[in-house]
Amino acid sequence: MIDELIERMLKGDKRAAARLITLVENDDEKAAEIVKKIYRHTGKAHIVGITGPPGSGKSTLLDKLIKAARAEGKIVGVIAIDPTSPFTGGALLGDRIRMQRHSTDPGVFIRSMATRGSLGGLAKATNDAIKVLDAYGCDVIFVETVGVGQIEVDIVRTADTVVLTTVPGLGDDIQAIKAGLTEIADIFVVNKADKEGADATVFELELMLDIEKEKWKDSWRPKILKTIAMTGRGVKELWEVIREHREYLLKTGKIAEKKKFRAEEEVKTIVSSMIAKRIGRKMQEDELMFLIDKILSREIDPYSAAEVVLEKSLGVKV
Amino acid sequence: MIDELIERMLKGDKRAAARLITLVENDDEKAAEIVKKIYRHTGKAHIVGITGPPGSGKSTLLDKLIKAARAEGKIVGVIAIDPTSPFTGGALLGDRIRMQRHSTDPGVFIRSMATRGSLGGLAKATNDAIKVLDAYGCDVIFVETVGVGQIEVDIVRTADTVVLTTVPGLGDDIQAIKAGLTEIADIFVVNKADKEGADATVFELELMLDIEKEKWKDSWRPKILKTIAMTGRGVKELWEVIREHREYLLKTGKIAEKKKFRAEEEVKTIVSSMIAKRIGRKMQEDELMFLIDKILSREIDPYSAAEVVLEKSLGVKV
Repeated sequence: MIDELIERMLKGDKRAAARLITLVENDDEKAAEIVKKIYRHTGKAHIVGITGPPGSGKSTLLDKLIKAARAEGKIVGVIAIDPTSPFTGGALLGDRIRMQRHSTDPGVFIRSMATRGSLGGLAKATNDAIKVLDAYGCDVIFVETVGVGQIEVDIVRTADTVVLTTVPGLGDDIQAIKAGLTEIADIFVVNKADKEGADATVFELELMLDIEKEKWKDSWRPKILKTIAMTGRGVKELWEVIREHREYLLKTGKIAEKKKFRAEEEVKTIVSSMIAKRIGRKMQEDELMFLIDKILSREIDPYSAAEVVLEKSLGVKV
Repeated sequence: MIDELIERMLKGDKRAAARLITLVENDDEKAAEIVKKIYRHTGKAHIVGITGPPGSGKSTLLDKLIKAARAEGKIVGVIAIDPTSPFTGGALLGDRIRMQRHSTDPGVFIRSMATRGSLGGLAKATNDAIKVLDAYGCDVIFVETVGVGQIEVDIVRTADTVVLTTVPGLGDDIQAIKAGLTEIADIFVVNKADKEGADATVFELELMLDIEKEKWKDSWRPKILKTIAMTGRGVKELWEVIREHREYLLKTGKIAEKKKFRAEEEVKTIVSSMIAKRIGRKMQEDELMFLIDKILSREIDPYSAAEVVLEKSLGVKV
């Protein structure tokens, strides 16, 4: 069944691709089988991560970016990481509903990803879904995350190009987040640029980059752009800079570094997931509960309990 | 050295507690030793998680909550998870600087946590730091996270009491996040309640809770409070509701469920960390790089590479 789906997907069958993504998302064993089989067809897509605080208009921006990419005939994939998924199974965001209108375009593939609860589960599912879209023939794959948490950051920073959106006047917290993210962003977008304070935000970002002037001598200095996603202003320029960054990566050979980093992170993620599954298989639920009860009664501490788990499930002595 | 530090910490030496937290944060082996030794002194503190989107005024609220708790003579611990830490090593947020004034109070212990890059590293360090503060004698430990990412959520949802802050009028993204977080929040705080739309936000939250009416029949129905953290309005009520929730947990015995859940998450986190370290020990850096190169040249796929890592480092066959 998987072989047939893969064959159809490689021929451009969108529904087969959708089925494969559902499989990699829901079934670890099938995910392994699928990725093993499609892996040699991957590696061509440009992976663009888009992140930023809630309310910074990422989805609207993405909606317009899809349009710009389609105008050039690119096949576009979108993986939207839904922050609500761990709990609700994925309430659709208003902005995303707007974006969904592209779904009727055969050259656009949009997918919302739901977390599977476990640490790393989301990252693994996202990696695997990217592979399916890559093999399917997407020229560009946008990975959008809402929020600024560690996992979201882990996901976008493995992209080839990272776009960080912000909006004017979000106060202290945002300032700090921006400061932290200068290290992963290739492009800063000050969205809602018609709002008061847009130029000040651009100025602050420029200052922040100036501090690390030395660093940009032999690497890409992040670009700062103003957009008004709602009207589409600045989106064409953003799309051009995204392509420019891609060319920079190819020309300088830095694309290999990016891919290496991504592969490393990916292997780590898969290893964790395999181990978690093995522990689940080797230790009975009641054995685990017995340990937990002992932790609560303070007969054993969490570290010693972890050592017991490792020995029982993997035969590993710490 | 550790034994001496622990002895001093248990006698109420704040600097010894600070040293111990630094150790659990930076050294996995010392973390294990310390937690094993102090574990029996823990279990008394009320752990209160505070989360919410950036800009919702968590730190200011916390500043005022500390005051309220101190007015009752409680020993207060604060662990502030800094979103910028993975990259910058922890730029101080403006609001947090304000909070730091409590540091001169011997009954208040404030600590910013930095991520150690790895998935789960932050959660583990936070757990361990909570234990130190608990053993030190804190009556209440606030764990504050900025952002709404998976890791942040994982951290706060292991708290006894979870406070979710929001502000009026943050748009679609926030709505969805709120919806997702109803499942973990015990108390909703609509901060900046003097802003337009505060009552509408409260109303929406009430509606959201009403949908799950059945659920609240035999469990705590999340409380919704309005605050203006800057002026302190509503903070006393918030502090009372926090204590009320604690009493509810104790009276109904639900505290045991919370503690069980926390212990489980904790063991999982420690197991992952131990395995990551073992892999680092057993596989040479160049062996790993060799595999990564093969992934890039598409001679091997990431899943097969992960299987090699598991076998070489843990002797585990998948």
